[in-house]
Amino acid sequence: MQAIIVSIGDELILGQTVDSNAAWLGRELAGLGAKVSRQVTVGDEMGAIADQLRRVSEEAELVIVTGGLGPTDDDLTRHALAEVLGVKLQLHQPSLEKIQQFYIRLDRPMPQTNVIQAMIPPGCRVLDNEAGTAPGMAAHIGRAKAYFLPGVPAEMKNMFRMCVRDELKKLALAQGGGLIVTRTLHVFGTGESNVAQMLDDMMTRGRNPLVNSTAADGIISLRINARAADEGQARRLIEPVEGRLRERLGDLIFGADEDTLSSVVGAMLRQQRAKLAVAESCTGGMLARFITDTAGASDYFIGGWVVYSNQAKSDFLRVDAQLISKYGAVSEQAAGALADNARRLANSDFALGVTGIAGPGGGSPEKPLGLVYIALASGDGVKVMRSIFPGDRQRVRLRAVYTAVDMLRRKLLGAAVPVSDR
Amino acid sequence: MQAIIVSIGDELILGQTVDSNAAWLGRELAGLGAKVSRQVTVGDEMGAIADQLRRVSEEAELVIVTGGLGPTDDDLTRHALAEVLGVKLQLHQPSLEKIQQFYIRLDRPMPQTNVIQAMIPPGCRVLDNEAGTAPGMAAHIGRAKAYFLPGVPAEMKNMFRMCVRDELKKLALAQGGGLIVTRTLHVFGTGESNVAQMLDDMMTRGRNPLVNSTAADGIISLRINARAADEGQARRLIEPVEGRLRERLGDLIFGADEDTLSSVVGAMLRQQRAKLAVAESCTGGMLARFITDTAGASDYFIGGWVVYSNQAKSDFLRVDAQLISKYGAVSEQAAGALADNARRLANSDFALGVTGIAGPGGGSPEKPLGLVYIALASGDGVKVMRSIFPGDRQRVRLRAVYTAVDMLRRKLLGAAVPVSDR
Repeated sequence: MQAIIVSIGDELILGQTVDSNAAWLGRELAGLGAKVSRQVTVGDEMGAIADQLRRVSEEAELVIVTGGLGPTDDDLTRHALAEVLGVKLQLHQPSLEKIQQFYIRLDRPMPQTNVIQAMIPPGCRVLDNEAGTAPGMAAHIGRAKAYFLPGVPAEMKNMFRMCVRDELKKLALAQGGGLIVTRTLHVFGTGESNVAQMLDDMMTRGRNPLVNSTAADGIISLRINARAADEGQARRLIEPVEGRLRERLGDLIFGADEDTLSSVVGAMLRQQRAKLAVAESCTGGMLARFITDTAGASDYFIGGWVVYSNQAKSDFLRVDAQLISKYGAVSEQAAGALADNARRLANSDFALGVTGIAGPGGGSPEKPLGLVYIALASGDGVKVMRSIFPGDRQRVRLRAVYTAVDMLRRKLLGAAVPVSDR
Repeated sequence: MQAIIVSIGDELILGQTVDSNAAWLGRELAGLGAKVSRQVTVGDEMGAIADQLRRVSEEAELVIVTGGLGPTDDDLTRHALAEVLGVKLQLHQPSLEKIQQFYIRLDRPMPQTNVIQAMIPPGCRVLDNEAGTAPGMAAHIGRAKAYFLPGVPAEMKNMFRMCVRDELKKLALAQGGGLIVTRTLHVFGTGESNVAQMLDDMMTRGRNPLVNSTAADGIISLRINARAADEGQARRLIEPVEGRLRERLGDLIFGADEDTLSSVVGAMLRQQRAKLAVAESCTGGMLARFITDTAGASDYFIGGWVVYSNQAKSDFLRVDAQLISKYGAVSEQAAGALADNARRLANSDFALGVTGIAGPGGGSPEKPLGLVYIALASGDGVKVMRSIFPGDRQRVRLRAVYTAVDMLRRKLLGAAVPVSDR
């Protein structure tokens, strides 16, 4: 089933709102086995909307349109649909009554402007809106089946779930086209091109399941997309591919689907009944925040020190001021002292220490922007890792946080902790 | 200048990534006076990409394409462009050297797969990528001017700013089509509907300048959009409207355009030569991180304590264990002690203390989810503010951070610090 998603709204085209509806519908349609060939956004203009409706209904069997069903002069979707169908809008009495009921529940008079929302092109089927005033519509444009949903995300999702999803499921089953199930594996500790090389043959286009990858700040997400008649069959296709990926990538894979480095390491700490503390300079609280993004972190996270100034390094964490003046605040020695002292003062099993140059200022030939030392203190002593991360201030900091948490993950796994470039 | 934005990527079409690039480019192009007539997303398929490139270049003078420039087999934008131009990809030696340099800086060997990123269709101009490996391209397709940018948002934005924006500015001026200039004012400390009521007549549609508002986590952004022949005229339209907004909203406005609460309060601290420390429980590092998001924060930020466990509150910050057992870790007294002790231990002018229940667990009838106590310690003593914030864990934490920094802003302004619901 070939599908096109159309989003309507000046706020989208002007970039004042990010179109999360299209992504949500993309996931839903993929799960129903529809193949979305295109997603198009147009502004609040009659001609442009009508033009797109004509085009996409020639190219796809299924068209899902969101937006332009509000009560203001900008909302032109129903007018454009009437034009495309060659009919005039007519008052749909049951819809008007529903809108009036909506306002009675709010204990407010219905503004006269809302009457337009009950004007429907004859021949369309009305879709009830349980979450707002704008009714949706289902229509045939040429051979395409078209659904018109409100632009407000909560109303759109509700209407799709209540009125559209089951119809599409039946249609997909009748066509025998099957559906797509996705399993995602998350990798940290190597580059995207390296992963691509390791998986070369598995990422060949046209395969089923198809493996593809995206990367963000050092985290590579491998998606296994399986097309099958039903979910069980899809899972059976995914399983051996996931097995091969795990075989090839081993410990580089830190989690699946909703897992994050924070949630995975948190679960390992909880299981091993181990406690963690942190001491951070350049990341400035970002490491502690990432660890506490996971609800329930109080089970294993004692707390931390943000030692942004040298004064704080000495005063809060008793780092020897002479060590700092001898080696610098950004040094292997300083990172080691941060982790070691944090572990002792917090009386924890593990402590992470981070110091670096996040920029934009402060770099030098020996200590360039992006240089970060990350130390892990444990019962086995202190290990320090030196890295140079690319990107601006925020990206360097984020990479440092992920790298620190991954260093602890490897320690908890009993794997070798990487100690690079000493 | 008529423009179309094209986004390329299976992850977009499948809804696995929300397309924030298109929105960012929409705002940029509006600011440059271009009229975006459409935004189209297609998956990683040669035929579909080439087909869209042909179509949109017939309909628009300007085409901006993002995505599909990575090193993997899925990245097909440069192949599709070569096909549309009727040429073969050729190795562009200077680009290859740049990519090699990129890996040398990272101290890693360049994977062989990255060579493809230096393959450019002859006749295209190469756009340097300062933030990653994929060079961009500028080309003419028929009469349309087309730019090809990477899909990674940071790389895309950097390349647009460095290589595209000025060219488009010149083009827009040469065409004399006018432009839209936007001035944004940021408000904190009241609700969006309150602001709308205060500004009622100024937000009427069809006005020039037009004022509209968006709200996120308590920060309300008011955009003044002026359409004019040139930037000077637009600024003259904006000025009186900005004046009236400032008159009505006063101290509720904390900044404009790129300002954040973090940058504004940072600048005030620097100017007053004052030093800050923080002690945070429920925000878990987020407050320190927000303060250090601003480059140069070391001028005024000494550091902080993340006292996530009660043990850390006592051990790190010497909060009286009896106080905690008597009033609870989430109490006015605990918040006050956090701020007061942080100020003394850091020897700073100001200290902020935050303790609360971010959820999802831990709420009770007297101390519901979202309850947060924020304390500000200064030479004038300690003030504590009690709030109940809506939303999930992350939203409660973010609101607490903004409220804490705004409390300090009001103190630095010499305004009354709000002390609610004691």
